[in-house]
Amino acid sequence: MLLLYYWPTIQGRGEFVRLALEQAGAPYRDVAREDGVEAMFSAMHEGPTPAFAPPFLKDGDLVVGQVANILLHLGDRFGLAPSDAGGRLWTHQIQLTIADMVAEAHDTHHPVGNGLYYEDQKPEAARRATDFRDNRIPKFLGWLETVLARNPAGPGRLVGAENTYADLSLFQLVEGLRYAFPRAAERALAKAPKVMALHDAVAELPRIRAYLQSPRRIPFSEDGIFRRYPELDG
Amino acid sequence: MLLLYYWPTIQGRGEFVRLALEQAGAPYRDVAREDGVEAMFSAMHEGPTPAFAPPFLKDGDLVVGQVANILLHLGDRFGLAPSDAGGRLWTHQIQLTIADMVAEAHDTHHPVGNGLYYEDQKPEAARRATDFRDNRIPKFLGWLETVLARNPAGPGRLVGAENTYADLSLFQLVEGLRYAFPRAAERALAKAPKVMALHDAVAELPRIRAYLQSPRRIPFSEDGIFRRYPELDG
Repeated sequence: MLLLYYWPTIQGRGEFVRLALEQAGAPYRDVAREDGVEAMFSAMHEGPTPAFAPPFLKDGDLVVGQVANILLHLGDRFGLAPSDAGGRLWTHQIQLTIADMVAEAHDTHHPVGNGLYYEDQKPEAARRATDFRDNRIPKFLGWLETVLARNPAGPGRLVGAENTYADLSLFQLVEGLRYAFPRAAERALAKAPKVMALHDAVAELPRIRAYLQSPRRIPFSEDGIFRRYPELDG
Repeated sequence: MLLLYYWPTIQGRGEFVRLALEQAGAPYRDVAREDGVEAMFSAMHEGPTPAFAPPFLKDGDLVVGQVANILLHLGDRFGLAPSDAGGRLWTHQIQLTIADMVAEAHDTHHPVGNGLYYEDQKPEAARRATDFRDNRIPKFLGWLETVLARNPAGPGRLVGAENTYADLSLFQLVEGLRYAFPRAAERALAKAPKVMALHDAVAELPRIRAYLQSPRRIPFSEDGIFRRYPELDG
């Protein structure tokens, strides 16, 4: 039984891990959702490898933190990444680039600091969101479109001929962008048809579809990374 | 011969890779410093695994991008990380957390967007830098201090009993913080003596010391990630 530790009321960064666990069919408990956040903090601060922040995963004796690092482990453990060194590193590189974009999406509503409310940094957020919409979303999605176009095994997946955790993360990235920036995302995705097609294909994977329809899938909200503040959309 | 592709006039994110290559004693060329940035862009945009941004590394047929991913590879290749799965993931987790702090250090002078000059986002930068100095530097350094204190092999290294690429990255992080925020860094490092001791020990590693005294080490400047703008120090 794998133990996932993450905030119990949001998708947030933990959702990238949840999607991988679901697609793997892995037996797991989402600990804070069952036992509360105290159980999460208690586990986070104990032992020789304390995580800086949630999410982190316990897999037997192994405790693994940082989303991309957790996915690196799950990719090996459940065949959600190629087994050769080159394919493994390339999948991880794509994941780290998606993580960079997720961090930038977060910073559109928190450009000054995490310790402040959005309401206390709205002018700064408006400027940062403009740059994110006009420059960063097109640049990141354009890169993902190129990656798909150049996959020697075909444009249906980011790496090789089988779904990897990077495909699942692309799905979640697109979901988040469409939630937070519906107008800007629609414009950018119109120029990234392969990204959109992969998003749609992931949504139809039987285990992902079942997960999305289950109560385990927490709705988007203005407490997560992707927040819908209409004034930040273009 | 390894080929490193990064901006030729700054330390930037590439410096974390340069330090690992130097400590490994790896034969490498810093391509853009010898052949210009056109050679870098040309290599960046070709092939089935294009990097989103520099740095990236060519090692035979392998092309690897994203700093932490490059270090994951170099760790395996040159023994700069433990070879067991748990130690390997833990080293990578520390690296990814350092990378998060580096990104936040960058955003103190570019809180609104990369496409704008610092001069066009000074009020926002002042607010973000305050949060970084008061909250984030102490939190990140406190976590690194805890990691050192809990290393079962002793507090002289982040992971195990041998230097890893994470130790080298801690050195560079401290160097950068002391350059960009001399007053805030001094305050925070006074409470992180193990971090400071590891920084000093890395500076004395023979290969690192030789590198730092060589012309290959580019000085810090206001074009890099760590920039000294006195108004952003506390």
